[in-house]
Amino acid sequence: MALAHKGLEHNSILEGVGFTQKYKLEFSGQKLVPVIQDGDIIISDSWDIAVYLEKSYKSDMPLFGQNNDFIQAKFISSWVDSQIHPLIAKCVVLDILNVINPDEHEYFRLSREKRFGASLEQVVSDRDATKKLIQQVLYPIRKALEVGPFFGGENPNFSDYALFGAFMWARMTSSFELLETYDPVESWRERMLSLYDGLAKNASKTDI
Amino acid sequence: MALAHKGLEHNSILEGVGFTQKYKLEFSGQKLVPVIQDGDIIISDSWDIAVYLEKSYKSDMPLFGQNNDFIQAKFISSWVDSQIHPLIAKCVVLDILNVINPDEHEYFRLSREKRFGASLEQVVSDRDATKKLIQQVLYPIRKALEVGPFFGGENPNFSDYALFGAFMWARMTSSFELLETYDPVESWRERMLSLYDGLAKNASKTDI
Repeated sequence: MALAHKGLEHNSILEGVGFTQKYKLEFSGQKLVPVIQDGDIIISDSWDIAVYLEKSYKSDMPLFGQNNDFIQAKFISSWVDSQIHPLIAKCVVLDILNVINPDEHEYFRLSREKRFGASLEQVVSDRDATKKLIQQVLYPIRKALEVGPFFGGENPNFSDYALFGAFMWARMTSSFELLETYDPVESWRERMLSLYDGLAKNASKTDI
Repeated sequence: MALAHKGLEHNSILEGVGFTQKYKLEFSGQKLVPVIQDGDIIISDSWDIAVYLEKSYKSDMPLFGQNNDFIQAKFISSWVDSQIHPLIAKCVVLDILNVINPDEHEYFRLSREKRFGASLEQVVSDRDATKKLIQQVLYPIRKALEVGPFFGGENPNFSDYALFGAFMWARMTSSFELLETYDPVESWRERMLSLYDGLAKNASKTDI
């Protein structure tokens, strides 16, 4: 989304990286996606990638606006990481088994059950309650959306992409509906899905 | 803080408004502080006041930067209202009895105990646990402070004042220490207390 936002041409060389295919990331010196390579420069971590793109490629579509937007965007993306992502995980983690290779099931189940301290079935068993909690935690998003259509104003910025990333992860791994149709956050999610000729809406599950 | 930020001269005509003194706010057509009067214009609610000041008085010190900062600031201030303020209340609510007039005790206790569904003594009884929860919830603040000294960058903006307001409320009503000295959020709070020749640091409890 950050590359599309800035209109930067790129090739996607990874058709997904399975949990047993981390060797594909060896060139980056670490084991997590996302990773970009720009000439000799290799950068991982979505925040670091966004900051690199912003500082390296000037465009009419900044990912961050003024200098202070880096700080507020860091707050919002860290809030997503710490408050939203774990709650979404509690809703979709069992469904992820359906979209990864069978030979990855054992690794995924063991590592995630250790993290949650419960079986994946137990984690998702009360996901309707988790969904209600998500609605509460999203309160400040709704208040922000009363002021404008995106965090970035008329156009999205990195804060939008950070939050959208969490919902996109859920969309690509599960059919569980996290948001109600009347929720302003759902309208925002639809706007995000439609950006750049439906880039996110048209993404297929092999792009995970 | 918003008035000082923009360098706007003003008189404070309310030496505190006790819970039994809401008649002092009748001129504003509502019952809550803060309220400002600017000529014939009367505005209440800290967000509405800040937006009014920003749009009415141009200065070198914007409370919000670009247009989109209104949206991100609305998110951050709503996050403070919904996530931080209630947790701080659970730590200091009993101590508030010590800083209000004795003839306000009954009103305060009854209304707050109804809100919490418990006696004030019960609410604060596990405030060490509440304090630990506050440390966790402040995680995205610490991440933001890794990027710059204030939400606003080199200078504070409305997001800083929104969060600071919650800590200032606690400081004026209680001696309970919400933050540890080694916490970057505490360093930020000290920076906020020192602004404008120590405006907040020097505030006395009659200014509540």
